[in-house]
Amino acid sequence: MANITKKVSWSSRADESAAAGEATPLLNGSEQPQHSRQDSLRGRPKEIPHNEKLLSLKYESLDYDNIENQLFLEEERRMSYMGFRCLEISRWVVCGLIGFLTGLIACFIDIVVEQLAGIKYQVVKENIEKFTEAGGLSISLILWAVLNFTFVMVGAIIVAFFEPIAAGSGIPQIKCYLNGVKIPRVVRLKTLVIKVCGVICSVVGGLAVGKEGPMIHSGAVVAAGVSQGRSTSLKRDFKIFEYFRRDTEKRDFVSAGAAAGVSAAFGAPVGGVLFSLEEGASFWNQMLTWRIFFASMISTFTLNFFLSIYHANPGDLSNPGLINFGRFEGDSVTYNLYEIPLFIAMGAIGGLLGALFNVLNYWLTIFRIRYVHRPCLQVMEAMLVAAVTATVSFTMIYFSNDCQPLGPESTEEYPLQLFCADGEYNSMATAFFNTPERSVRSLFHNQPGTYNPLTLGLFTLTYFFLACWTYGLAVSAGVFIPSLLIGAAWGRLCGILLASITSTSSVGAQHSSTIWADPGKYALIGAAAQLGGIVRMTLSLTVIMVEATGNVTYGLPIMLVLMTAKIVGDYFEEGLYDIHIKLQSVPFLHWEAPATSHWLTAREVMSSPVTCLNRIEKVGTIVDILSNTSTNHNGFPVVVQVPGSDEPAKLCGLILRSQLIVLLKHKVFVELARSRLTRRKLQLKDFRDAYPRFPPIQSIHVSQDERECMMDLTEFMNPTPYTVPQETSLPRVFKLFRALGLRHLVVVDDENRVVGLVTRKDLARYHLGKHGLEELQLAQT
Amino acid sequence: MANITKKVSWSSRADESAAAGEATPLLNGSEQPQHSRQDSLRGRPKEIPHNEKLLSLKYESLDYDNIENQLFLEEERRMSYMGFRCLEISRWVVCGLIGFLTGLIACFIDIVVEQLAGIKYQVVKENIEKFTEAGGLSISLILWAVLNFTFVMVGAIIVAFFEPIAAGSGIPQIKCYLNGVKIPRVVRLKTLVIKVCGVICSVVGGLAVGKEGPMIHSGAVVAAGVSQGRSTSLKRDFKIFEYFRRDTEKRDFVSAGAAAGVSAAFGAPVGGVLFSLEEGASFWNQMLTWRIFFASMISTFTLNFFLSIYHANPGDLSNPGLINFGRFEGDSVTYNLYEIPLFIAMGAIGGLLGALFNVLNYWLTIFRIRYVHRPCLQVMEAMLVAAVTATVSFTMIYFSNDCQPLGPESTEEYPLQLFCADGEYNSMATAFFNTPERSVRSLFHNQPGTYNPLTLGLFTLTYFFLACWTYGLAVSAGVFIPSLLIGAAWGRLCGILLASITSTSSVGAQHSSTIWADPGKYALIGAAAQLGGIVRMTLSLTVIMVEATGNVTYGLPIMLVLMTAKIVGDYFEEGLYDIHIKLQSVPFLHWEAPATSHWLTAREVMSSPVTCLNRIEKVGTIVDILSNTSTNHNGFPVVVQVPGSDEPAKLCGLILRSQLIVLLKHKVFVELARSRLTRRKLQLKDFRDAYPRFPPIQSIHVSQDERECMMDLTEFMNPTPYTVPQETSLPRVFKLFRALGLRHLVVVDDENRVVGLVTRKDLARYHLGKHGLEELQLAQT
Repeated sequence: MANITKKVSWSSRADESAAAGEATPLLNGSEQPQHSRQDSLRGRPKEIPHNEKLLSLKYESLDYDNIENQLFLEEERRMSYMGFRCLEISRWVVCGLIGFLTGLIACFIDIVVEQLAGIKYQVVKENIEKFTEAGGLSISLILWAVLNFTFVMVGAIIVAFFEPIAAGSGIPQIKCYLNGVKIPRVVRLKTLVIKVCGVICSVVGGLAVGKEGPMIHSGAVVAAGVSQGRSTSLKRDFKIFEYFRRDTEKRDFVSAGAAAGVSAAFGAPVGGVLFSLEEGASFWNQMLTWRIFFASMISTFTLNFFLSIYHANPGDLSNPGLINFGRFEGDSVTYNLYEIPLFIAMGAIGGLLGALFNVLNYWLTIFRIRYVHRPCLQVMEAMLVAAVTATVSFTMIYFSNDCQPLGPESTEEYPLQLFCADGEYNSMATAFFNTPERSVRSLFHNQPGTYNPLTLGLFTLTYFFLACWTYGLAVSAGVFIPSLLIGAAWGRLCGILLASITSTSSVGAQHSSTIWADPGKYALIGAAAQLGGIVRMTLSLTVIMVEATGNVTYGLPIMLVLMTAKIVGDYFEEGLYDIHIKLQSVPFLHWEAPATSHWLTAREVMSSPVTCLNRIEKVGTIVDILSNTSTNHNGFPVVVQVPGSDEPAKLCGLILRSQLIVLLKHKVFVELARSRLTRRKLQLKDFRDAYPRFPPIQSIHVSQDERECMMDLTEFMNPTPYTVPQETSLPRVFKLFRALGLRHLVVVDDENRVVGLVTRKDLARYHLGKHGLEELQLAQT
Repeated sequence: MANITKKVSWSSRADESAAAGEATPLLNGSEQPQHSRQDSLRGRPKEIPHNEKLLSLKYESLDYDNIENQLFLEEERRMSYMGFRCLEISRWVVCGLIGFLTGLIACFIDIVVEQLAGIKYQVVKENIEKFTEAGGLSISLILWAVLNFTFVMVGAIIVAFFEPIAAGSGIPQIKCYLNGVKIPRVVRLKTLVIKVCGVICSVVGGLAVGKEGPMIHSGAVVAAGVSQGRSTSLKRDFKIFEYFRRDTEKRDFVSAGAAAGVSAAFGAPVGGVLFSLEEGASFWNQMLTWRIFFASMISTFTLNFFLSIYHANPGDLSNPGLINFGRFEGDSVTYNLYEIPLFIAMGAIGGLLGALFNVLNYWLTIFRIRYVHRPCLQVMEAMLVAAVTATVSFTMIYFSNDCQPLGPESTEEYPLQLFCADGEYNSMATAFFNTPERSVRSLFHNQPGTYNPLTLGLFTLTYFFLACWTYGLAVSAGVFIPSLLIGAAWGRLCGILLASITSTSSVGAQHSSTIWADPGKYALIGAAAQLGGIVRMTLSLTVIMVEATGNVTYGLPIMLVLMTAKIVGDYFEEGLYDIHIKLQSVPFLHWEAPATSHWLTAREVMSSPVTCLNRIEKVGTIVDILSNTSTNHNGFPVVVQVPGSDEPAKLCGLILRSQLIVLLKHKVFVELARSRLTRRKLQLKDFRDAYPRFPPIQSIHVSQDERECMMDLTEFMNPTPYTVPQETSLPRVFKLFRALGLRHLVVVDDENRVVGLVTRKDLARYHLGKHGLEELQLAQT
């Protein structure tokens, strides 16, 4: 956990990282860098010291607060009530589209994966059948490994070389986006394409991954694309939904997309809504939530509908998600009061195992950041993992002799006979050959006795390390299903052990046999515990699990298990997503300021001095300020000086870098106003057209004459930015900032003069460490 | 809908209404009353003109913003990290307790109702059996009517005479509380006791009511009581949870209580959480929501556990709520794409019928406000309704000859043979004699053919008007179950009609028969449509319905139906709860400012001039300001004047009436400070002890000498109140106010001088009427 040199990150690729990060200027001017290694590294400007105590200045905030400047207000005032109704209706249409497309993508992934997996199974099976007698199973192994290899290689190449941000599950990135951090390129069309192809490759490649996590990312990209009514990548503008081209609206739609993704992945529309709220909520808006729910519903429904057609059973809409836990019904749902302590104990085990998983993955990620940062190395690692996965699986199948009868009611779709007698199949082979989703389901629902404890134990152990190694590879893949699978395996093992203990003990044997009879129940609890221990989500995960099991009865046990797993796990290590977010130094804002931060006030927290602009400012000054790479501010308080008086300037507004850029680009100078009588006035549309990829200041040419012109910002600045006095406590500042999703909060003195500016980074710096309140450093990584 | 004279309200009883309401001062001093009738009514001071365009000044806001004064900050800073952990743990304990007690109360109500209903059924049945042959059925009718009569009378008397606020379902009141309006006496222990007894009486009395709505109120009262660690009514202080004695914490717990109530009523823990969020959320806090969910889970679990013991089936935890829709499983869950238009049409019918219900109930409520305001009249009306209900039911049973075979698998618990052949029962009698919950379930799940269309049609018609008449009576009762019952009845009727249409038509008869076979599905959709049409809840209702049916497959149809019902219904009339809230002139804040209000700024909206206090103020002045009944302000900006300068005073803080009262009571005067060296300093505890029933200013004696003393407010005022500039647009003010749950928002000019104050009433005044933006009047009703 020492300081390590960092070269790769979610967003920086070679071309971009060269431009940024010459030095590590601290936004908070009053403080000196306490980090002595920085100086020693000055010789190597591209290698910034990296540890988890750093906070990157690279990430920008989204602006969830509307810029209510004169242009905006004029537009809003011009709009009639009917106009607002139409807007509202188009919001619903967009959400419906988001849900529909997300459902379609999920459907596409599912069908392609199943088809490819089926082909792979056929090929390998025929090969095995041919060689089992002849004794040349090593040829089958090689064939299998080569197949997996190829898929994984393709998946890794497209991710590593074309869009590194598509790696992993995408949930950490979406968490950040919903939290209000702009992660570059995370919601682009290209990312979506790579993600979808990558997921198919890695799942078919037999890695220990799931296809569910990436759905959330896919949904978010769909939302960001559809809601803007254009594709910047394809250079197509459909001239629709122009009103939605701003951070506020876009973030709302991305929430809906993420929810639709969860909904499609787990058949959990309510869980999807809660996921979005848990990660993204600023102030909770009823209509927004209702729309998010609509998108989720449509997504589930679409997936369901098309899958029912694919399965030649149209109209059967009872398989709502990509993964379906199957229904827990009848006797197996019953649990008793005295089982609850057992569930809680399993929750604790899940927490421990989850923490172990996270610690191992943390070390691995550090290792990867340090040594495996070149795309070709990343591809090679992915291929190595694929090969190891295939070899380990094959070895275990080879040495396992857990044969199960192949009954007529058996649900196995890919039974492998191998060395078993006729009419039997090898259950270890099934566990490895099935898609992980199907394995989870059979662990939940197969008859008692289907799995032998040794098989389960070995499987848990192997899969645990494989999944841990796999997460963080340069492939698109999720960690939900592997976690569920590990948990279901050891949970079922617990169930079997409990059953054998209680059946050998004499007391109450008859009664208990009905309760311990179903290890599937324990598999479910184990799965919840393991997943909770790894990802540490709370409310949304409970609801997702409850919806996926389709039974509210298990709500309380699942909740208790997830709570226990979170409490136990948090004692050792953070959640997996949080680890990855932290390792990227993202300025992530939690729900509340650290509890013990009441002694901090806005004065200590804010950045100062602040670069202010005058209401009527010289163009040259503006260009110089914007070009200053060492500060790179994005929001500038606008002040007004009473002419001829020496009173200090008062705050009168706030203007953003992006707005200034557009103004400069359109040369909105006072001196040109007279000649511009014929030209049209700058409108909100001009800002929207430039959104979200505003050109850099370098691309805007301002002549020497123009530098002497003046710019009147009155019409464009936000005249009523939120302000706080200097004495405001950190929790209060935090609450205002977080509840309204602000990007800049101006700190003023009691005469309304600007004394500082609070941004996301200033607030994210403070966090609760092991030794009380700690302060992170800011660095231009 | 004309102006009517208003005498009764949720909270004003004779003694209180006399004190209030001498005149109708407008808080916004700049405006003149436009309402000419006011003058003509001056002679009758107790009769305030009332229409729905008025907004009452009587209701106070809750303060969801922490008062971060020096005392508070000192306490917070003294607290260690462990202290915060302990607080957090005690919050969980409180939520657990809330859930447990709410579950227990639900269990108690359920068992008592069932026992009493059973006794009533036995008595009436024996009587009917005795008299059927002899032809004296009128005696049975009278017996039945007298029984109902007695129960309803008891229920009405306790409500009307002892606690009028316990009338109705309590959901409008809880909506207001969660919205941030302090409704007097709504969360008191006495209200809870009356509510529980009242509900039992009205359900057993055979009124067209449900016992589910009141559970939400009960849960809220439990939460408000438990979280404060004392009962003011019982004068017991347990000296625990003292930290929670402020509006912020209390409102959080009340949210949890309301959620626990929903959860116990419908077995819908997630629905409960969403209900609380939908009604109460300011900024969404993850830990809070998680705790609310915990309370809901515990509540469902407790109810489930104790009911399973009561039903001699301990451990069967699959009946989570008071009402259980039964499981929709197997073939009956299937719906097809082409059924969706039918569902939407049913949603539209539900919206229409709901609007009709609401309009009728609106007129009725106006009538009641005008003429039925004395408790004895209210009791008489309730008894009249009871008698009419009994008579109508009996008549319909008498004339109906819908006999159904009493099969061995029949689930009817109260079959009545009446004029049917042996082995058959009268299905109309069943529908009326069953508890409404059971009737709903049998409409959902009974075999096709159980009900005859005429029975259903008549039943719908009768029950519709009975339910409409009943809601608003001075009895504790909910409208959820009657709505569901009406909807289920006409929904099933639709199903039956559809089945008969499709079976007579030749095309595709074989295929369609499997789909139209189950009218239970249509009963469910009808129930959702009717309920949605009446109450117009959105997300939470969908989730509640989905959870109660235990099947996520129906999510989309239910959602579409509820949406349609809401859109159609809203076209004619508001939701039932909103009507009642409006008729009480409660300053209820919606989610967003009216869409077309961008042309309004804080300057137009705010109240001015504002009564300000100096940082060091004369006691006499404070007492005079507080005693001024014509203004009755609750928050006072504190300003500071630079001594010896003629500059205008700057804002430096905000202090509340309740704080000033405590300061006056403890005589915290500058002059006494010297002599008070031995006396202890005023602590936060003193404010907490006085919370929430701060004494009125009249009860505090201040001598003439003391009037000349000075009070230093520095330590007690909130030094960093939220402020906005005058130019801020209404939507922006609204968003800040609502997201942070503020009570006072100070409007300042660009020199930080106070120019106005925005309170809840100023914002609630603006609403979107039929003719664009309308402004409500303020009156001290």
